[in-house]
Amino acid sequence: MNSQEFSLPVRVYMEDTDAGGIVYHANYLKYMERARTELLQSLGFEKPAMIADGLLLVVASMDIQFHAAARLNDDLLVTAEIVRTARTYIELVQKVSKDSVLLCEAAVKIACVATSTLKPARWPSVCLDRFNEKIRSL
Amino acid sequence: MNSQEFSLPVRVYMEDTDAGGIVYHANYLKYMERARTELLQSLGFEKPAMIADGLLLVVASMDIQFHAAARLNDDLLVTAEIVRTARTYIELVQKVSKDSVLLCEAAVKIACVATSTLKPARWPSVCLDRFNEKIRSL
Amino acid sequence: MNSQEFSLPVRVYMEDTDAGGIVYHANYLKYMERARTELLQSLGFEKPAMIADGLLLVVASMDIQFHAAARLNDDLLVTAEIVRTARTYIELVQKVSKDSVLLCEAAVKIACVATSTLKPARWPSVCLDRFNEKIRSL
Amino acid sequence: MNSQEFSLPVRVYMEDTDAGGIVYHANYLKYMERARTELLQSLGFEKPAMIADGLLLVVASMDIQFHAAARLNDDLLVTAEIVRTARTYIELVQKVSKDSVLLCEAAVKIACVATSTLKPARWPSVCLDRFNEKIRSL
Repeated sequence: MNSQEFSLPVRVYMEDTDAGGIVYHANYLKYMERARTELLQSLGFEKPAMIADGLLLVVASMDIQFHAAARLNDDLLVTAEIVRTARTYIELVQKVSKDSVLLCEAAVKIACVATSTLKPARWPSVCLDRFNEKIRSL
Repeated sequence: MNSQEFSLPVRVYMEDTDAGGIVYHANYLKYMERARTELLQSLGFEKPAMIADGLLLVVASMDIQFHAAARLNDDLLVTAEIVRTARTYIELVQKVSKDSVLLCEAAVKIACVATSTLKPARWPSVCLDRFNEKIRSL
Repeated sequence: MNSQEFSLPVRVYMEDTDAGGIVYHANYLKYMERARTELLQSLGFEKPAMIADGLLLVVASMDIQFHAAARLNDDLLVTAEIVRTARTYIELVQKVSKDSVLLCEAAVKIACVATSTLKPARWPSVCLDRFNEKIRSL
Repeated sequence: MNSQEFSLPVRVYMEDTDAGGIVYHANYLKYMERARTELLQSLGFEKPAMIADGLLLVVASMDIQFHAAARLNDDLLVTAEIVRTARTYIELVQKVSKDSVLLCEAAVKIACVATSTLKPARWPSVCLDRFNEKIRSL
């Protein structure tokens, strides 16, 4: 974990697992969204999903690789790192690991959209400033 | 199943199971909500959860017994039957079964609330009429 | 909260909410299961859901009342208190609250079953001892 | 939809939505897994997730684009098409659409692993035969 990565501990509960005895694949996306939420809160956004009046954050794309499986009661670490900012979206790299073993990783594109139309909207400047500060310090 | 029960077939997918190899208990509540939704649509409500402008249906209470477990790929039948109507809520009995074996059953109270305040609101008369017709015909 | 209640802080993420703008009712059951898991771990059980070789814990019944709704980003407190022990099950009372306001509460019966048959099984004595110690100290 | 695509109708229930008023992004992965399950059943596999003794199907990677959002009560169509087979995995293209409007699409790699070790395992020949027949007929 480099110094700019934000990380959130997550425990695996029964709700997260499936009959294969492992964490259900779609649930890693929930873990990653929890880490993004906490990252944004650490940047000063009180309601990360509704980042400003009339604006909503949505997942625009996700390219995810599953390398190894987590199991019931595992203690995981989920990271979120902003790697690029643009006028209407940001890109992050996120990882889920257990005892320093990488379980899965994803490139995630988060778009800013208007709540009413769900069409792309420009980030308010305060958002871009905070995102860029987080990147620039790398 | 008596003649007034509404029933919905539900298949168990991986998403529904847990590491115990069975359907995760909270997911039966999802099955029951699907059956209630379809019951209300069969009564003519196009958007059952938002039954009318400014009104939302919420679960007020649920008393549920789990008798036996469903497993991956099981084909289940989920019923919903209105057993009582009141000014701001209705009561239903719901059952989940597999091959006529009862897996779980619940007494469910669904309240009508104002979307803005989440406080109890009176059913529009068209709602009560349709609910009562469904009961009366028993 | 009395001195014997176990409590777990839970934050509401997007995954927990629904289009009504509130926490989806079935998700409170997940919160409660997390708190039971942590309670059992605090009693020394490393794998609470599979409490001993060949034994599985399952929810046998739940009587739950929903009083008020939690929303996105709320910080909740979820309690779990063992109120009765028997040869093959225990009964708990669980509450979810926000800023000391009770949102929902449930009477929950957790059964010990054989993993292979899912039939009721007696608690190993070490389990009952620990459960009773937790109750007796009230 | 071309002639080799398998498709499954899916209705959006409250459980699938989030406080943004749309389907929670991770839940499209559930829809896609339901369609893969039904595709494999149509190919003669009774327990698609555990395709043969000691073998488990797991998602190895997923590259997903979200173009537009589904809402409560929407009736969706979810497709699954095998586009490549290999010794230990298959690749599929999957789409979710509403009224012929594409909402999201994904390239999905499904691996065959040993249930005990979760390490890659060769497909039984009956599996590959059926997969290839489905592709070859394109």
